[in-house]
Amino acid sequence: MELRLSELSERVGAKLDGDAGTVVHGVAPLDRAGPGEVTYLAGPRHRRSLPETNAAAVILTESFRPECPVAALVCENPELVFARVVEALAGERQKRAGIHATAWVDDGAEVHPSAYVGPHCTVECGVHVGAGAEIGSGSFLGAECRIGEDTVLMARVSVYPGVTLGRRCLVHAGAVLGSDGFGLARDGDRWIKIPQLGSLSIGDDVEIGANTTIDRGAMDDTIVEEGVKLDNQIQIGHNVFIGANTAIAGCAGVAGSTRIGRGCTIGGGACVAGHIEIADAVHVGGMAGVSKSLHEPGAYASGTLVEPLVNWRRNSARFRHLDELARRVRKLEARLDELDDDEGS
Amino acid sequence: MELRLSELSERVGAKLDGDAGTVVHGVAPLDRAGPGEVTYLAGPRHRRSLPETNAAAVILTESFRPECPVAALVCENPELVFARVVEALAGERQKRAGIHATAWVDDGAEVHPSAYVGPHCTVECGVHVGAGAEIGSGSFLGAECRIGEDTVLMARVSVYPGVTLGRRCLVHAGAVLGSDGFGLARDGDRWIKIPQLGSLSIGDDVEIGANTTIDRGAMDDTIVEEGVKLDNQIQIGHNVFIGANTAIAGCAGVAGSTRIGRGCTIGGGACVAGHIEIADAVHVGGMAGVSKSLHEPGAYASGTLVEPLVNWRRNSARFRHLDELARRVRKLEARLDELDDDEGS
Amino acid sequence: MELRLSELSERVGAKLDGDAGTVVHGVAPLDRAGPGEVTYLAGPRHRRSLPETNAAAVILTESFRPECPVAALVCENPELVFARVVEALAGERQKRAGIHATAWVDDGAEVHPSAYVGPHCTVECGVHVGAGAEIGSGSFLGAECRIGEDTVLMARVSVYPGVTLGRRCLVHAGAVLGSDGFGLARDGDRWIKIPQLGSLSIGDDVEIGANTTIDRGAMDDTIVEEGVKLDNQIQIGHNVFIGANTAIAGCAGVAGSTRIGRGCTIGGGACVAGHIEIADAVHVGGMAGVSKSLHEPGAYASGTLVEPLVNWRRNSARFRHLDELARRVRKLEARLDELDDDEGS
Repeated sequence: MELRLSELSERVGAKLDGDAGTVVHGVAPLDRAGPGEVTYLAGPRHRRSLPETNAAAVILTESFRPECPVAALVCENPELVFARVVEALAGERQKRAGIHATAWVDDGAEVHPSAYVGPHCTVECGVHVGAGAEIGSGSFLGAECRIGEDTVLMARVSVYPGVTLGRRCLVHAGAVLGSDGFGLARDGDRWIKIPQLGSLSIGDDVEIGANTTIDRGAMDDTIVEEGVKLDNQIQIGHNVFIGANTAIAGCAGVAGSTRIGRGCTIGGGACVAGHIEIADAVHVGGMAGVSKSLHEPGAYASGTLVEPLVNWRRNSARFRHLDELARRVRKLEARLDELDDDEGS
Repeated sequence: MELRLSELSERVGAKLDGDAGTVVHGVAPLDRAGPGEVTYLAGPRHRRSLPETNAAAVILTESFRPECPVAALVCENPELVFARVVEALAGERQKRAGIHATAWVDDGAEVHPSAYVGPHCTVECGVHVGAGAEIGSGSFLGAECRIGEDTVLMARVSVYPGVTLGRRCLVHAGAVLGSDGFGLARDGDRWIKIPQLGSLSIGDDVEIGANTTIDRGAMDDTIVEEGVKLDNQIQIGHNVFIGANTAIAGCAGVAGSTRIGRGCTIGGGACVAGHIEIADAVHVGGMAGVSKSLHEPGAYASGTLVEPLVNWRRNSARFRHLDELARRVRKLEARLDELDDDEGS
Repeated sequence: MELRLSELSERVGAKLDGDAGTVVHGVAPLDRAGPGEVTYLAGPRHRRSLPETNAAAVILTESFRPECPVAALVCENPELVFARVVEALAGERQKRAGIHATAWVDDGAEVHPSAYVGPHCTVECGVHVGAGAEIGSGSFLGAECRIGEDTVLMARVSVYPGVTLGRRCLVHAGAVLGSDGFGLARDGDRWIKIPQLGSLSIGDDVEIGANTTIDRGAMDDTIVEEGVKLDNQIQIGHNVFIGANTAIAGCAGVAGSTRIGRGCTIGGGACVAGHIEIADAVHVGGMAGVSKSLHEPGAYASGTLVEPLVNWRRNSARFRHLDELARRVRKLEARLDELDDDEGS
């Protein structure tokens, strides 16, 4: 789709500084964008490419304007404006509709005529697929699950029976939604499975990454509120609650029955223990291990810093005697105090 | 299914304290259960909901009996009894049988007439699917693999050629069983693949979580003994041995050729290095990194505790000089000893 | 396939010490190999089985030759030679070709006549599958993606539109290649998706483990160079660059826009932060958290060592006061210095 910069800047909420009549049609990276293409400067890291850019226009903050040799779309949040530019230039996405000949849809399922069910999908009895939804190739929709309007499942997504997804969600390939929680009871040496009778409820505008797994509840439901963003390879245990607009990075895990507040961010590879509470607006660093509740908003971390192996060997060996070391320091202080007293007396 | 409390209590091995004639038909959480429904009190955490419950009966330990306003099923292990109650009230599960029209089953495969093969499954030559087994939609059974009686595979499970699963196993969606181990030999700068010629053998009553992966052996088999329970997103390397009734929580990883004993528990996100031995009855904490053999039963951990980011920055910076700090303390002790000697002389 | 030891030793580049005429046909582990079978001694760990082996020949280094009771294939790198022996004895692998009746291939896709597309695969418009390639059961090839010659995809692999795979790659079940990166922009409380317009380019001879995920780039491509080996359950973020012949063990994660050099090894469960650079020939230990660039080749680690829980509780509690402890030591040193000065004066 082609747009004049004047029209584009108005649509995306940026201030145009340059030729209003220039026509643009696409986007490209700063160092490869040419005539007709818009690009953006995400931060100081890419600054050195700015003076040489051949883009038609660059999205940037006021502070970088002086270094920009071409038209600028000045704004406070270039990434957000870039997202809007892509949307504006993309035009209407061509949607697929209908049920592919190789899909298997139970007679008791309800697929909206404007929805799409791809090749080799399985749609069981009682499923409801909303208007404009797309079910990617090879996906499985278990009995009675509900897929909201305009929600898109990429290839090979598994949705267990009874799971509910909201509207405008995006679920990436290989994700598993509503698998059994890890509920076990001891019976002597053996483990007996505790039936997982709850379900999983996912709000509107949730994005779920590739091969991410979310368990159904044991008795109550697991709940993921609207606007939550989950990266790839994340594991969410049973009966977890994730508050609206919380974002969790790849490889993180949240154990069962934990409640995570709204507007939180959890770093990649972090693990959150079960049965704890994380307040709203808590930010957990990458690879942190959160083993207790965090009741105050703010940033948290754990772990040690990477260092050359030879140093690490020495330091980590000392860690195993850290308590003893602290006691020895305490003793030294006492001895010195005594010496001082002796001196003083 | 409907049962009198007298009959139910007898079946599940709990002591009934209340009206023996009350009829129950289902289960529900403590705070939502109503007439005809049984619930359970897992522990002190949910205690406050107990006095207001409208359940027909509550499963609990003797200690909570006084606070329970309705009939009680008194026992030592409420979770275990709850599991039995669910089973007792569920009645006979309606089993599916037969091969779905969209499944592709090789002529040389043997599927028991009472087994079920779901839509879009692939069953290769020489596969054996036992009586009462269920193969979920979109699953792949490679040549010569064996699925034991009453074992259930949920949707989209991949079983590589030659893998053996025992009876009454439950495998969740997206799990991959028998993929190649990560065996590489150096050839100058390049890596040459070491063929993975072993297989994977899984015992009876094993549960395997969603998107969990277990590699086949390099030459001998990878072995998962009976009663092992694996949560979601776990990775088990080649030639690993996991002893009976060991339970491993989500996101954990076990590297190649490691032997884990019986009755162990491994916490979520923990990683166990390759070529080591873990004794029976070892309990590894969440996110622990086990880099050496653990020959004694007991509980183990590693890592640091989560704390506010500003504190963590200071503390983790000091960790990189911990060895030096310990040496300085040693020196201080020596200096003080010398001073004391001087004083004494 | 049967070979004389004389011929085999020549083909695999090892020195034969034993009867040149002995005929071998297969391989087996050291303790189970019998007549006609070749085995190898990987290292001192298996040394005790060597004197009792019944193998026809053992691949080993010069140092173990004296302890070997049978013919020996002496070499410097037994694992490499073993890989070649397996290849030599395997003979020509029987390749499958053609498109399975249950696969769905778009008319606009190009599948080489010598390639194989398995049951229930989906191949979209504009896809190119090269000569000798094999697409495993239930895999998805998105529009315009390219699969190089002799590349093998096992079951249920998802390749997003536009992704390019080189020649002789091996991709294990459940892997997802080219999913959207985790690109989000803040819009008040909400997150707006930053469109992921780049692609994913994978070189020749790359192996990708089961359920591993690699994201496409935001604007430029994510790049995995030739000879890279990725284990299971790995997550690679958008715009990451992984240099040739780097090997990454299971459960590791690499966040977006990070550049990893050539010939590196990353241990299992390690996480590498986004937007950093790792030099060539860097070796990162298992479960390390790499949060800053590593510009020098060498070995690195982080974390603490596993220890009994009771000890760990005490030590980890002290870690939260490590900065304070260091300050107290500094103070003690100052006080002692003062005392010494007093003594001296």
